[in-house]
This record gives sequence, structure tokens and C-alpha cells, in this order.
Amino acid sequence: MTKGFINYRRVLIVGLGMIGGSYAQKLSSLGFEVGALARRQETLDFALEKGYIAHGQVEVTREYVSQFDLVVFALYPKAFVAWVERYQDYLKEGAVITDVTGVKRAVVPAVQEMLRPDVEFVPSHPMAGRERSGVEYADSHVFDGANFIITPTEKNTPEGIELVRTLGCILGFRNIAVLSIEAHDEMIGFLSQLTHCIAVALMDCKESEHLAEYTGDSFRDLTRIARINENMWTELFLENRDELLSQMDLFLAKFSELRDALARGDEKTMKEMMRLSTYRRSFFDK
Amino acid sequence: MTKGFINYRRVLIVGLGMIGGSYAQKLSSLGFEVGALARRQETLDFALEKGYIAHGQVEVTREYVSQFDLVVFALYPKAFVAWVERYQDYLKEGAVITDVTGVKRAVVPAVQEMLRPDVEFVPSHPMAGRERSGVEYADSHVFDGANFIITPTEKNTPEGIELVRTLGCILGFRNIAVLSIEAHDEMIGFLSQLTHCIAVALMDCKESEHLAEYTGDSFRDLTRIARINENMWTELFLENRDELLSQMDLFLAKFSELRDALARGDEKTMKEMMRLSTYRRSFFDK
Repeated sequence: MTKGFINYRRVLIVGLGMIGGSYAQKLSSLGFEVGALARRQETLDFALEKGYIAHGQVEVTREYVSQFDLVVFALYPKAFVAWVERYQDYLKEGAVITDVTGVKRAVVPAVQEMLRPDVEFVPSHPMAGRERSGVEYADSHVFDGANFIITPTEKNTPEGIELVRTLGCILGFRNIAVLSIEAHDEMIGFLSQLTHCIAVALMDCKESEHLAEYTGDSFRDLTRIARINENMWTELFLENRDELLSQMDLFLAKFSELRDALARGDEKTMKEMMRLSTYRRSFFDK
Repeated sequence: MTKGFINYRRVLIVGLGMIGGSYAQKLSSLGFEVGALARRQETLDFALEKGYIAHGQVEVTREYVSQFDLVVFALYPKAFVAWVERYQDYLKEGAVITDVTGVKRAVVPAVQEMLRPDVEFVPSHPMAGRERSGVEYADSHVFDGANFIITPTEKNTPEGIELVRTLGCILGFRNIAVLSIEAHDEMIGFLSQLTHCIAVALMDCKESEHLAEYTGDSFRDLTRIARINENMWTELFLENRDELLSQMDLFLAKFSELRDALARGDEKTMKEMMRLSTYRRSFFDK
């Protein structure tokens, strides 16, 4: 069976949270037949009512799973690996599976090594989300203009990679990049996990209810992501612990450099650090 | 002369940068006669052409300055103190002056102690700005919905405070708060200066031009203010050094707590910190 996208009309979303729900919403709107596996019937009922899915189940059955050509896992890292371990026999012959997992070294080798040879896992990571969990917050517009990263390994085929690239494209992502799993985890440790750690720590510094009436936009922007799903992010941090610790230590060193320059009244260093940050930030304006 | 706002039809803006220009723009649009002192003729020409001011000068003369009932100083801290020292004799009898300075202990006692007894200085701080400098970036909409802080001392009169409160109000600020100069500097050290330090340090961590294509919104939000006017902020940081160092150390301790919890795999502490940040952040949604 060729892996051209047109052959993948039936897509299964495993895990109907904010991201899984947004995938379902967008793919249904494009005419795909989208099925879903969720833990709670209410989740399926909501998605059915909204038209995000055509059908869904809470039980994982061979009869249901084996109907799908493309399966998207929108689960936490450990739950994803455990699902594949337990149910991979149910997958259709020749199916392609992908994921949305925010860490890659912890899931990609584990899944690819145990996976049946007739099923291909093409790992990907949509760099988008919201500060809310659950299918009620599904909104495929979060993908518009966002980045989508594919992290293939030598186990992947050009056709499989092309299929997932097309998936990212039709979901609305602006930029589709390819990285190794190591480069992904380093980059995500810096750009995403470190920033969440900073936001959490900053928000935890003070009892701050009354501060809302004095704040400008800076504090609001820096702490937006301090509203965080603690179960998901704790798992993501622990599954990328070595990389995240490196990135946190790098930031600690840089922040301390600025602190120490201030302490000794070293204007020159302070200004140099600000000129550098100004220069570098200019590349990030959308 | 009563200090009712209606008597203050002629307003002088000293320093036509982004903030001074925005004050001028808004006050002119409301029908005030706005004059300006700027360092460069081009600045005045731009503001005249845009209708932000009715007239302006590059030289500071008694004849010009003495025409104004209300004077707003939109200068850096040291330049503001130096201006008052040098030119306060030119101020009109009974004039009220205010400022926009982002640090208060460094300017308020110095100015109030040397000021002529017939002129009142009511310190204030508009909590709004942009990542750009100069009158070309003036835009009074940045005040809409923002916070305005008045930091009076025992040298101020109820009428003077009321006048500056009215100024904040007509400029479009949503919330007008009154704080002591000490409470202001502590609060601003935490909410504004610390956040700028974090953004600068984060942006300085890595050569990151290529990272723009992988980033989600988190990094973009956390580093928006890393685009910074290094001369102004270095002066503001140094003029609030003790407070800012305390706030930086508080953040360092909290960030290190999260780092160490991650290092030892302490899920419980990590989740507690995230639950706290989620709870506290909920008060900041606009």
C-alpha cells in the first residue's frame, strides 16, 4: 500500500485532550473520517456533539483499532509507550502511527524497537498548546502559524516522513522542521521546558494577589505559562531531566552574571548583556 | 490658585521620548495646550507635524517654562534630578510638576527637598511602555487598561495628589493606585525590573537565530522585553540596586528549588510548585 496521504482517509486519535481534540476538529473539518479512543464517555460525547469525531470508544478493541490507516497518539509519554506495548497487535497492517509527545528520547527508541515491522512510527511534535486541558478547549487555530517538528530516525522511510509532513501541513502549521531526537530534546529543554520552569518559579516567589493591580504587561507575559498542567509537565520534565538540568544551569549562570554585574555596579557588562539580548530578540519577531 | 484640573490648560512635557510623546499626543487630543522641551529639533518637528504639541523648544528658557501650570518630566532619573536642580527657578509660581520615573527613592526625596516651596512635585509612574524608544513610537493607546501609580510623600497636598490622579485618569489608565516610594520600588523591582533581567539573561543564553523556527509562544512571550533600551534600564536598575538584588535573589532561590527537585526526581515538590503557580496566576488574567 502506498503511503500517499490520499489513502489515509480514516484517522484514529488516541487521547482526546486539548491537542488530540484539536487534531480531530481540524481533520474532520477537512473531510477525514476521524475516530477516537478516550478514557471517558463524556469526552467522546462532547467531541461527537461538536462534530470533531465521527465515532469513538472508551474500550480499546481490535475490531475498532484495526480500521484505521493513520493513528495519532495524543497521550502523555509513559501512557503512549504503555499503549503500544499492550495494544500494538490491534493496529492495521501497514498503518502509520505518529504522536504529539513533547519529549523524544524517552519515547521514540522504546516504541520503535518494540513495534511490529509492518507498522511505521514517525515521531512528531506540534509546538502549540494552551494553558487549559481537555477537549472542551480544543481549538485548531492554535496551529496556525506555529511550528511542527518531525524527529525521524533511521527506522523511518521517506514515505512515512512525507506522510507526517503532509499531516503537519494540512493541520495548519506554518513551519515544518526535521530534527534528530537528541537535538529536539535539547531545543525543547531550552525553548519550552526552561521557560515553563522560569514562569513557575517567578509566580511562586510571592503572594501576589494584590500585585495584579500594579503590574504592567511584562509580568503578565512572563507568567502566562505558569498556569500549567502539573501532571503532564512533571512527567515531561522528568523524561527530559538531563537536558533540562543543563538548560536550567545555563540560565542560572547567565542570570547570576547579570546579578553580579549589578551588585558591583558594572554598567559596561550590564549594557553589553542588554545589547546582545536586544540583537538576538530581533530574530524572533513574527 | 486652586489646583482643580480645569485650571491646568497648559502642560509642558520635558523629554519627548516614547512616553513623553504619548502624554503629549493624548493631552493634545483632549484639547490641552501642550508644549515640549526636547534635545533635538527633529523630535519637536515630528511632534509638531503629528499635532502632538502646539509648540516646543530645544533651549530651556525662563520665558518658555514659566508659561506652564503643569509640567510632566519624562526623563531618565538622573536627568530629571539635574533638570530641577538647574532650572527650577524658571517654573511658574504655583506650578505642579510630576514625572514618569520608574524608580522613586532615587528621585523623590532629592527633588522634593531642593524644590521651591511654591511648586509641588507629585511623583507618579505610568506602568506602560513599548520595546521601542523615541517619539516616533508614541502611542497613547498603551495607557488603555494599564496601571498608574502615584507615590506621594508627606510633602504633598491632597489637591496636588488629586490633580495627578485626574491626569492619570484622562490619559486612559484603568487603575490608579497610591503607594509609598518604598513599596513602589520593591514592587517595581519584582514585577518589572526582575522580569526584564530574566528576559535578558534567557535571551543571552544561546546563539539562537535558528531557534526562531522551532519556538512556540512561550519563549517568544518570555523574551519580548529582552529588546531593551540598555541606557535607560541600566540606570533604572542601578538606581534601585538594593531592591532589585533582593528580588533577583528571591527568584534565584525559588528557581533553584525547582531545579533541585527535578535533579532528585522529587515529583511531589515539582507538582506542588506548579499547583501554586497555577493558582496564583489565575488572579492575573485580564
